[in-house]
Amino acid sequence: MRIVIAPDSFKETATAMEVATAIEAGLKPELPDATIIKCPMADGGEGTVQSLVDATVGKLVTTQVTGPVGQPVEATYGILGDHQTAVIEMAEASGIHLVDRDVKDPKITTSFGTGELIRHALDAGVEKFIVGIGGSATNDAGAGMLQALGVHFYDEAGLELGPGGAALGQLARIDATGLDSRLKDVKIRVACDVDNPLLGETGASAIYGPQKGATSEDIVLLDRALENFADLVEPDCGHDIRSAKGAGAAGGLGAAFLAYLPATLERGATIVSDVVGLKQHISHADLVITGEGGVNHQTIYGKTPIHVAKVAKSFDLPVIALCGSVSNGYETVFEGGIDAVFSTLTELTDLETLAETTPQHIQKTARNVARLLKIRLNL
Amino acid sequence: MRIVIAPDSFKETATAMEVATAIEAGLKPELPDATIIKCPMADGGEGTVQSLVDATVGKLVTTQVTGPVGQPVEATYGILGDHQTAVIEMAEASGIHLVDRDVKDPKITTSFGTGELIRHALDAGVEKFIVGIGGSATNDAGAGMLQALGVHFYDEAGLELGPGGAALGQLARIDATGLDSRLKDVKIRVACDVDNPLLGETGASAIYGPQKGATSEDIVLLDRALENFADLVEPDCGHDIRSAKGAGAAGGLGAAFLAYLPATLERGATIVSDVVGLKQHISHADLVITGEGGVNHQTIYGKTPIHVAKVAKSFDLPVIALCGSVSNGYETVFEGGIDAVFSTLTELTDLETLAETTPQHIQKTARNVARLLKIRLNL
Repeated sequence: MRIVIAPDSFKETATAMEVATAIEAGLKPELPDATIIKCPMADGGEGTVQSLVDATVGKLVTTQVTGPVGQPVEATYGILGDHQTAVIEMAEASGIHLVDRDVKDPKITTSFGTGELIRHALDAGVEKFIVGIGGSATNDAGAGMLQALGVHFYDEAGLELGPGGAALGQLARIDATGLDSRLKDVKIRVACDVDNPLLGETGASAIYGPQKGATSEDIVLLDRALENFADLVEPDCGHDIRSAKGAGAAGGLGAAFLAYLPATLERGATIVSDVVGLKQHISHADLVITGEGGVNHQTIYGKTPIHVAKVAKSFDLPVIALCGSVSNGYETVFEGGIDAVFSTLTELTDLETLAETTPQHIQKTARNVARLLKIRLNL
Repeated sequence: MRIVIAPDSFKETATAMEVATAIEAGLKPELPDATIIKCPMADGGEGTVQSLVDATVGKLVTTQVTGPVGQPVEATYGILGDHQTAVIEMAEASGIHLVDRDVKDPKITTSFGTGELIRHALDAGVEKFIVGIGGSATNDAGAGMLQALGVHFYDEAGLELGPGGAALGQLARIDATGLDSRLKDVKIRVACDVDNPLLGETGASAIYGPQKGATSEDIVLLDRALENFADLVEPDCGHDIRSAKGAGAAGGLGAAFLAYLPATLERGATIVSDVVGLKQHISHADLVITGEGGVNHQTIYGKTPIHVAKVAKSFDLPVIALCGSVSNGYETVFEGGIDAVFSTLTELTDLETLAETTPQHIQKTARNVARLLKIRLNL
């Protein structure tokens, strides 16, 4: 029997590989002859670098880059086991968690550090990129990232634009000739689970600005600044970034990727599945076990367990989910292809203790799932 | 398919019937054609009255009796659905929880109220008794209970002994001729899960005295007092209460039952099983689900789920346990016949919230157990 274990991380308490390993440890004593394949998953957001590095036996690389408000930050990205692919979470360099709550201001935050990470990986010789863009602090349409990669943005006076989305209102001329030439030969897959356009009511500024600290006046100002950016970028790069789905993701970072880089925007889970070979592993399996920190009424909207279940169901396989919490309304996951879901909590505890004991809880639960699977009934 | 649901109560959060009902609610949508038999269980301790009243559709009766330190207390006992059997927990009348922590003193506490409960039930016309004797505050060898039922204990001066174990040191003469004559025609099953003798190092005073507030001097004094009691009781009643197993239970209450009442001491789970017809129900079942508030390394020593599992295994049936907590070391229950055990916790919460939401948690878990059982694998 072959079992594929493909969980997401349990946020704050266990990485996806730790979860998969704990599940394996629970199954082994009960199903000693089973072949177990661990596919640590992610959705393109937090934990994606760790999961893909773990899945491919790659390595983590840490370097100093420019943070969202100009401060130096230590940022970590991954180089996969193929030595050719870098996996980057933009939040590592340009994330909202790097900005103090009381100075949050998307008018001035820059994605420059994300560009520096890409350059650092180019220096390391990679040819492929996977970029997760969740959790950004920025609303600069990726201008900062492009600046770090050699593009120049000038104002009327011919001066280089300063950092931040508001400055884009002064954009008058673009010079992309300095774009790092190595980028011509790479392939960039951007993990993007939202369809928001760059501008307008459902655009970057209006939808994601507020959680980054934008007031309603800021939103108007930023949306106009990004419109000015689009007005000048589109003729320069020759792409329509105004109507592109997902261009508004991560404060418009999506637009920058589409405009000047050889990038595609794809669902995070799709990219991760490709890297870990999920479909191939599942095609030879008898059972799939997935999981996530919490399952609730929103899980059905494309979280990792649902993606895994969809692949499993295309091969008509049973799917079990082990999740830290199973909240009211979770039952919709049954329609998403999950056959049974168990909470991995086995004792009343607090979050702090849980951070240290999560693998034990998971292992216990997995063991009993295996024992239950061995029960034969005439149903 | 027939499923027997036979859980104990989840102490402080749900009665055994509430647990069984929640499990049933979880199974029903997944196994609509299953015949479900609910057997709320107990071990003779707390919750026994409630479980047996629920199981037999009996009723609860509340009356005022004498508490362990002489105070009036409201005590509840059950009359089973057969209208012929009373089920009494001695702790209701004579329990340690009825004594303030700072006045705990087993030299003076009396089991008088337990005798009053028996008399009250006799007045109601019952012919059989089930008595659970856990949680007592007393160390009076059941002398108080016997006094309430008409036995007289006198000192050298011919005065009636006062309440409490210490007074038994002054016992000089017994007159049991006044024992309620209705007791001749009844049958009393005492739920007793310990084998301690009345006297000595493993006797009532030495083992259970300390938790009732006895100092080491008190233990010596009480042990001597109970020895004096035995010296006079044995020739009077004609029974050997000194070497009887379980005579030391509940501060020697076991001895009083054996000496003057038509009683047998039996394992609590055995008595409860008989009343709910556990064995008969299981003999026609395909699956047994049991449970308890917590399962741990001590569960194997005769707790309800193990008793239920033993009966189920005698019919070679699978047994699943649903428990509030599954603590480290719980795995010994596998040897006790439990095939799989799941914690019913489905979200991080606190005890207070849990008291209100336990049935929801149980229902969720039971539903997914049923869904997992429907998964077919080539194992």
